[in-house]
Amino acid sequence: MHRDGAARRGEFVTPHGIVQTPAFMPVGTRGAVKAVTHRDLLDMGAELILGNTYHLYLRPGDELIARCGGLHQFIGWDRPILTDSGGYQVFSLASLRRVREEGAEFRSHLDGSLHLLTPERAVDIQMRLGSDIAMVLDECATTSDLGSEPGARRSPGSDPRSLAAGAMERSVRWAKRGRERQLQLRQDPRSAMEVTVTNAGQAQFGIIQGGTYADLRTESVERMVEIGFEAYAIGGLSVGEPVDVMYEVVSHTAPLLPDDKPRYLMGTGMPDDLIECVARGIDMFDCVLPTRNARNGQLITSRGPLVIKNARYARDPAPLDPDCDCPACTRFSRAYLRHLVNQNELLGLRLLSLHNLRFLLELTRGARDAIEGGDFAAYKARTRERLTWEA
Amino acid sequence: MHRDGAARRGEFVTPHGIVQTPAFMPVGTRGAVKAVTHRDLLDMGAELILGNTYHLYLRPGDELIARCGGLHQFIGWDRPILTDSGGYQVFSLASLRRVREEGAEFRSHLDGSLHLLTPERAVDIQMRLGSDIAMVLDECATTSDLGSEPGARRSPGSDPRSLAAGAMERSVRWAKRGRERQLQLRQDPRSAMEVTVTNAGQAQFGIIQGGTYADLRTESVERMVEIGFEAYAIGGLSVGEPVDVMYEVVSHTAPLLPDDKPRYLMGTGMPDDLIECVARGIDMFDCVLPTRNARNGQLITSRGPLVIKNARYARDPAPLDPDCDCPACTRFSRAYLRHLVNQNELLGLRLLSLHNLRFLLELTRGARDAIEGGDFAAYKARTRERLTWEA
Repeated sequence: MHRDGAARRGEFVTPHGIVQTPAFMPVGTRGAVKAVTHRDLLDMGAELILGNTYHLYLRPGDELIARCGGLHQFIGWDRPILTDSGGYQVFSLASLRRVREEGAEFRSHLDGSLHLLTPERAVDIQMRLGSDIAMVLDECATTSDLGSEPGARRSPGSDPRSLAAGAMERSVRWAKRGRERQLQLRQDPRSAMEVTVTNAGQAQFGIIQGGTYADLRTESVERMVEIGFEAYAIGGLSVGEPVDVMYEVVSHTAPLLPDDKPRYLMGTGMPDDLIECVARGIDMFDCVLPTRNARNGQLITSRGPLVIKNARYARDPAPLDPDCDCPACTRFSRAYLRHLVNQNELLGLRLLSLHNLRFLLELTRGARDAIEGGDFAAYKARTRERLTWEA
Repeated sequence: MHRDGAARRGEFVTPHGIVQTPAFMPVGTRGAVKAVTHRDLLDMGAELILGNTYHLYLRPGDELIARCGGLHQFIGWDRPILTDSGGYQVFSLASLRRVREEGAEFRSHLDGSLHLLTPERAVDIQMRLGSDIAMVLDECATTSDLGSEPGARRSPGSDPRSLAAGAMERSVRWAKRGRERQLQLRQDPRSAMEVTVTNAGQAQFGIIQGGTYADLRTESVERMVEIGFEAYAIGGLSVGEPVDVMYEVVSHTAPLLPDDKPRYLMGTGMPDDLIECVARGIDMFDCVLPTRNARNGQLITSRGPLVIKNARYARDPAPLDPDCDCPACTRFSRAYLRHLVNQNELLGLRLLSLHNLRFLLELTRGARDAIEGGDFAAYKARTRERLTWEA
């Protein structure tokens, strides 16, 4: 592993290939990264994609996917896949879910059917999916749970710190149960014949919670490492807290984690955050914003943000980003891309998604090179400066 | 030119390259073939695409496109483009349009603004777009205009034949005006400085009308050929008439047209019709159904029609069409394609559109080869038989 300050340049070995870190993971919620193809992802240098367990569990169902040979075979992607535990989506359902010690009970957002997601069940589902990296089920306390409305009246034990501590402690108990189930399925798959294990080499990552409280984060790290996972993620960030608070928590937490294992910052991946958190020792990122924003016409360029719907681009023959080598930038004008987006043409969604993804994958590749070259501080400064320009 | 019975195997030279006929044109309504890329179209063997003047005139506007260097440059496609006159869409607006001798007055379906499409204006717009083939404005009498409800009371002169005759005659008068304008812009572009001619080599096709009446079709051909165009299209079919009536009109009309010029059957292009009409001497086809149906999950395969949403495909590991070499068929299973369509994933829209387009482009290539080989009757019989199978 190369190092440059706290930044790290490493590799993570999975049954479907080696992932070079720092790595940005495009999000393929329902088994497809929206608006682009697998071929596009490979061409752009994506090595690892993320699938959402919640969505795949509901449709088409983890058992169907297992019968089709697992997620890799089902979607025709033979590179590494990481799946989340489904917990984040369940906790986002707000009124549709109820959390108790056993697990999180929720109603499907699709048909209202009732489901119980337990730590064991989250393992079973991901074992059927056969992702290369599975995440344990954790309790995600949201910003609103943590009392972002300071004047709100609270019942005893519902102050932000108590909530963060409670969620962290429950996450530890759930992680223990999840890890036990994972090891059982690995070591004695016949003890749970109802679970078709489609990827025997699946790794399992633990998740650090503790909100914005340094001591809770420290405790979470200690207890998760005691349980022992293939690697660790930092959860409960990018949920509405100020960005400097996020950087602070990352600065505090990352160095506590085992040095020889990748560190994954969940749900973060916009360029500024990615560069700042690589500098703080994070190795893996995921974020839906690059693709979601692209579909709304908000682009990231080497000369700052660009909103393609803006009237000033109506007759602009220039490429979206003259420094980019993606199909949108090498073959089309801003005028045409704007027309496509304004007309909701699927080609526009695709081209702009390709651009934002390519930007982030290139940014990450650049970060890897800079760390290897011992030049990361300058790369970071250059990148941050470029990102604040007006395109 | 090769011949095999009435079927013809030819070429049509345009400023952006030679089109091999019989040719199927993918429809790129708003300057993009829905859900696929230009690269895909080239890879699949598309030589010519169709753009809709009505849509491009309203958004982003023909003047904007002219300022961007014409439609080819605006959309980044350097192969041949055919544009329709805009008339068909205007006539489809029903209550939003009023036709008089001067032209067709209509309200935009987007913002209700009032527009007048005259034969001259249809030429000017297409000259600004700079398509390789422009169509004259014609009066399209729809099936309902032509009295598909036999019991309906009619005012004098509103019987189906009178309506068809009236539309045919007006189409001839409009064609004369359109041709005059086209020749004026070609020969003396400075006489109309308001029209930026972006493709000086644009061809103009006349359109044969006359409904289902053989004598009216004959008269239409005679009078259109007298005006003189680079080639001719048969209009007013595929508008709701029984398929054998369409074949009959084509059988009657095609042989009347000049032998040395391509013949374009407007709005038709599903496999059966394409093969049957190639057999009757048609050289060019367009149809939105292959892409529209694909987006709804209705596929054309070498083993008959296939509705991918059908539950029987939920766990089907087979390719959509084992005889097809498109990306959907070579890389993915029916189970995954079904999942994508059911989840409205953009990847599904793209893959299935690619498949249907590839099917038609291959079918057309096969027809060309068969005509060259003097084997078209057998090719037609084989194709028609395959298309009636159950996939």
